[in-house]
Amino acid sequence: MKKTDVLVLGGLSGITAGLSCRRHYPDKSVTLVRKEGTVLIPCGIPYIFGTVGGPQNNVVPDGLLESNSIELIKGEAVAIDRDKKIATLKDTTQIEYDKLIFATGSLPVIPPIPGINKKNVFPVKKEFEYLGDVLNSMKTVEDVVIIGGGFIGVEFADECRKGRDINVTLVEALPHCLQMAMDDEYCTEAEGRLNEAGVKIMVNTMVKEIVGDDVVTGVKLADGTVLKADAVILGIGANPNTFLAEKAGLELGYKKAIKVDRYMQSYSDPNIFACGDCAEKFSFFNGRPVPIMLASIATAEARIAGANLFSPVHQNCGAISVFSTMINKRAFAVAGITERMAKQSEMSYVIGRHEASDTHPVGMPDSSIVKVKIVFAKSTGVILGGSISGGRSAGEMINVLSACIMHRMTANDMAQFQMGTHPALTPSPIAYPIVNAACKAVLEIHCH
Amino acid sequence: MKKTDVLVLGGLSGITAGLSCRRHYPDKSVTLVRKEGTVLIPCGIPYIFGTVGGPQNNVVPDGLLESNSIELIKGEAVAIDRDKKIATLKDTTQIEYDKLIFATGSLPVIPPIPGINKKNVFPVKKEFEYLGDVLNSMKTVEDVVIIGGGFIGVEFADECRKGRDINVTLVEALPHCLQMAMDDEYCTEAEGRLNEAGVKIMVNTMVKEIVGDDVVTGVKLADGTVLKADAVILGIGANPNTFLAEKAGLELGYKKAIKVDRYMQSYSDPNIFACGDCAEKFSFFNGRPVPIMLASIATAEARIAGANLFSPVHQNCGAISVFSTMINKRAFAVAGITERMAKQSEMSYVIGRHEASDTHPVGMPDSSIVKVKIVFAKSTGVILGGSISGGRSAGEMINVLSACIMHRMTANDMAQFQMGTHPALTPSPIAYPIVNAACKAVLEIHCH
Repeated sequence: MKKTDVLVLGGLSGITAGLSCRRHYPDKSVTLVRKEGTVLIPCGIPYIFGTVGGPQNNVVPDGLLESNSIELIKGEAVAIDRDKKIATLKDTTQIEYDKLIFATGSLPVIPPIPGINKKNVFPVKKEFEYLGDVLNSMKTVEDVVIIGGGFIGVEFADECRKGRDINVTLVEALPHCLQMAMDDEYCTEAEGRLNEAGVKIMVNTMVKEIVGDDVVTGVKLADGTVLKADAVILGIGANPNTFLAEKAGLELGYKKAIKVDRYMQSYSDPNIFACGDCAEKFSFFNGRPVPIMLASIATAEARIAGANLFSPVHQNCGAISVFSTMINKRAFAVAGITERMAKQSEMSYVIGRHEASDTHPVGMPDSSIVKVKIVFAKSTGVILGGSISGGRSAGEMINVLSACIMHRMTANDMAQFQMGTHPALTPSPIAYPIVNAACKAVLEIHCH
Repeated sequence: MKKTDVLVLGGLSGITAGLSCRRHYPDKSVTLVRKEGTVLIPCGIPYIFGTVGGPQNNVVPDGLLESNSIELIKGEAVAIDRDKKIATLKDTTQIEYDKLIFATGSLPVIPPIPGINKKNVFPVKKEFEYLGDVLNSMKTVEDVVIIGGGFIGVEFADECRKGRDINVTLVEALPHCLQMAMDDEYCTEAEGRLNEAGVKIMVNTMVKEIVGDDVVTGVKLADGTVLKADAVILGIGANPNTFLAEKAGLELGYKKAIKVDRYMQSYSDPNIFACGDCAEKFSFFNGRPVPIMLASIATAEARIAGANLFSPVHQNCGAISVFSTMINKRAFAVAGITERMAKQSEMSYVIGRHEASDTHPVGMPDSSIVKVKIVFAKSTGVILGGSISGGRSAGEMINVLSACIMHRMTANDMAQFQMGTHPALTPSPIAYPIVNAACKAVLEIHCH
């Protein structure tokens, strides 16, 4: 029987966990088992449909595995015998392991809408051939309806219009696109950008039925209207892929994710770790389970899991939740708690806002206005979160806020933040928006 | 006699100090006295000569003063009576103050080279009309020699070639341009970029004399060679502008900068504060005086000084020294301690390096390779500094490192950093270079 010190099941976070294990335990044998011939970069999937042109341009290179002596087995684990520490694959191969990592990811939610299984209704699966087929079918469509206005939905909407003069309608049940992720003013700005890109947005709109014979021809809404559609993309969200973990008797938690502790060790079995979308996430702030699925969190967890396998000492501090997107050439990014979330949690908070040109003087080329909003706890002054819209540099500016959150900086600390500035690269030192937003908030925190 | 609660002397950091005072002490009257009719954005000065086209496109708007009820007096303070707390201007106006802030900046170094006072030899003064004249004279030149390969020198060199088919030669005494600021490999990369932009670089080269009659015609080097030159730009550095402070009997420190404590309060007089280039800087790391002059530090200090005027409680943690530049479309940035500095200080250190595309997958438009190098203390794992070259986003990525340095994060902490990632905006979550550089360093720190 094949033996390996470390057996990893899964894709993106599996690769990262394997690399982390290799770095920390150079003498251990590591085997990665996965179903997919090729692992796609998950956050790049929408861009297959426009900017990068196809799934072949969005793959995680397997060269990383070879160069780190990680054996790759293409197959599907179907059973785990935890007592004997043996995994069985679909083709009956058995692999004995010492430590096992679940990195099995998530599967797209298929909502129970009548007609959802008609042809040309596409959930966003992270599968190479499947997405190639979806892309192919987009060549002949004229009317695309995207159900769900979260990140996946808006990114698909934006990309579907690139190089295609087709009708794209985004249908969202809530009052705003991206409402779960961003505050109203940023949602409104993002919606404006989508409109400018030619995307029609319908908010406060429920889908009742997918119509058509074999193939979809329309989407019927709650009010009876039928939107013409020869393709439907489902951007409703994803659930942890934990069928095998459940079958193996591992305790599952929130949303049926594998229950793990701060070492990414499963509650049920000290020899089994989990990371990424299949593992339960807890909040950096209050420690409660949170339904966050981000590739960046998955890889952070994978690094922790891999490092902890034979000496669990690396602590996961919990999910801050930092993400960014680009909608019709404008970046939107959030780290931690938004004003909406602060209100919902009945926090007493103070908002600091500032906007500035992201170059200085304004006449420098490729300028954008960057808008920063930071939420601080009123009683302590500690940063809770921040939101940014702006140009390209907003993607790293949100990571500055992430570092501030991780260190529980106060508005006063942040008012003295030492940033580097340069005319071509950043806002001016006088106007640097993170610092100025903090400066404004300081006073409200001090005065009350 | 005119009375004001707060009198600020100076330009950029003066404005920022005034704004900080206004925020913290809304009832105090604030008066700003400065010689210049218009304050230039200091870091934007090289861009006057190319990208932005003129000094009029590089000014700090005075609207900020008006809208914050800060009175502006154009004049030059020539004497301070500290006992009576009265400042006298050149035109004999007297102003009684309660608190005084020196923000008098710096003046360019004019090296004692024979012929240095010839016409068309231009030190980089931060003066509107003067720079307009320099720009004008650049219209007719054919051969420009820039003396000094620091930031100012390389930025001028790059800009002088924009829209002008002229010969630009950069002369540097050290083995590399930017050698005081960056490690060799980054210097080499920057020099390559300058060469590609058509700049001729002469390193290890000393200037002996400026030749010509009334007007410069050439630059004579130590080996006797004469470089043809109809304009010379001096980018040698700057010294604190503290003539008035010295005259007023304030204690001066390193390089004759005004001695201040962590509250930015002058050693000699509790009613006098100083900030920016005229104030002594001390290192974030060892607390010793350092000769760093950066607009971003000046504004950070100005915010602290303004906040401390009537209640000194805000501490300056010392200069980390974070800066960035753009040379022929490539960004270079450093925060804290470079490998060169670590070696010179006999630190035991570990280097973590990683490079990655700054978008993912690589096929996303406007991709650059971003190269990150981080220096950690070997014994503690604490980050000491980092260097980055890359595309536009490097300007904010260096600020992520600044936040890490400020919090004395260890390589292990940074290996678990939660960054947000997005295909169009950042490196991939697997390859994120700050995290990967830290991951590599962790092992060396652990093993020894």
